Amino acid sequence: MPNAATQPLFEEAKRLGIGFHLGYAELAWQDGVKHRFNTAIIVDKAGEIVGKFRKIHIPGHHEVLDRPGQHLEKKYFEVGDLGFPVYQAFGATCGMAICNDRRWPETWRVMGLQGVDLVFCGYNTPVGLGDPYDLDALTLFHNQLSFQAGCYQNATWAVGVAKAGCEEGFNMIGQSMIVAPSGEVVAMCNTIEDELIVHNCDFTRSREYKRDIFNFANHRRPEHYGLIVERTGAEEPDA
Amino acid sequence: MPNAATQPLFEEAKRLGIGFHLGYAELAWQDGVKHRFNTAIIVDKAGEIVGKFRKIHIPGHHEVLDRPGQHLEKKYFEVGDLGFPVYQAFGATCGMAICNDRRWPETWRVMGLQGVDLVFCGYNTPVGLGDPYDLDALTLFHNQLSFQAGCYQNATWAVGVAKAGCEEGFNMIGQSMIVAPSGEVVAMCNTIEDELIVHNCDFTRSREYKRDIFNFANHRRPEHYGLIVERTGAEEPDA
Repeated sequence: MPNAATQPLFEEAKRLGIGFHLGYAELAWQDGVKHRFNTAIIVDKAGEIVGKFRKIHIPGHHEVLDRPGQHLEKKYFEVGDLGFPVYQAFGATCGMAICNDRRWPETWRVMGLQGVDLVFCGYNTPVGLGDPYDLDALTLFHNQLSFQAGCYQNATWAVGVAKAGCEEGFNMIGQSMIVAPSGEVVAMCNTIEDELIVHNCDFTRSREYKRDIFNFANHRRPEHYGLIVERTGAEEPDA
Repeated sequence: MPNAATQPLFEEAKRLGIGFHLGYAELAWQDGVKHRFNTAIIVDKAGEIVGKFRKIHIPGHHEVLDRPGQHLEKKYFEVGDLGFPVYQAFGATCGMAICNDRRWPETWRVMGLQGVDLVFCGYNTPVGLGDPYDLDALTLFHNQLSFQAGCYQNATWAVGVAKAGCEEGFNMIGQSMIVAPSGEVVAMCNTIEDELIVHNCDFTRSREYKRDIFNFANHRRPEHYGLIVERTGAEEPDA
């Protein structure tokens, strides 16, 4: 990045003095080995790339399932190898998540522990793939809940950006939103067409949370969190 | 437990075949040393204590502050020393949290990794202590958000029980609720008086979440979560 397709975007952003966040499928050669990552970058107002993230929580399946729609992200992408880094941009400590990462509190907490002020998260979330209907019916609720909880529990702003529309016969949700450190949604798209939402994010708003209720140094107890890094999955209760 | 004051509760519960969850201030002698914990127990339908929890996330302050109300929990209680254990009761894997514990995703995740089906959480949450008004105004929202996120992200039921009323001049919130593994609130008190809510919790409801979207073994990446146990607090971004 930028490549030929995105060069005009970088140039126009620089001309206007507007930074941006961009997700893409990344083909990376590392030590002679080809890797495919689900990647995003932060570009500052000067048009410079200041941060990169590779999606950690790859959902879906490795193989085609017997159901109406497929979700083969595990087949096509590797788990990211950069962790959850934060970067200085826009006068704030910025981090990134991609799509399914937003549902995992670990995503938010690892950035929260680095003092994140603003999290960018793009998502392409379809409905109708063949999940139980009650999961589909709750997709918008779960999208919003994930952003609100991540912001509140880490006293950070977040910008969630949906790619809406229809892909390969399946509709994707919209609901792009900007969420405050209080967990309140301060702006949200209300169509599934192209739409622009704007909010002036005050990065001092998180300080009352970080100073008191979510003063991590005062209240967190990592000595009791060991399982979070020691255990991958839950044991079956009746095993 | 039971002591003279609670013995009648245990006896009546046993007679009726109804288990319960009870929070109390615990004075514990361990190796000749006196400890004070904020503690809760699970009592099964036979009137037997099957589990104990000691609050981990002690909020508030060690000393009196110059403000209308005090929150001296850090002065009076030690951090719990039992972690977040789970217990078999009521045909489910049960865990506990106390009050402020519910706001911390680590609380839920450590139990989630042990396959928890049902979390009991009592809380005494006041308003007007002297926090910024906008925090007070959002107290009900944050209470609900914490339960909903914890349940959804760990595919567990939760029962949150408020002690409402007025203590030492400060009102406490109500909003006792039962939350499903979907994150949906299925029952909620709507007064701040004595009130009973009932729901038939189907412990199979969480399986579709645990099998797919929150299949921890398939999707979690503990190798990228290290900071959660390595770092107590956030470094100041500009330090």
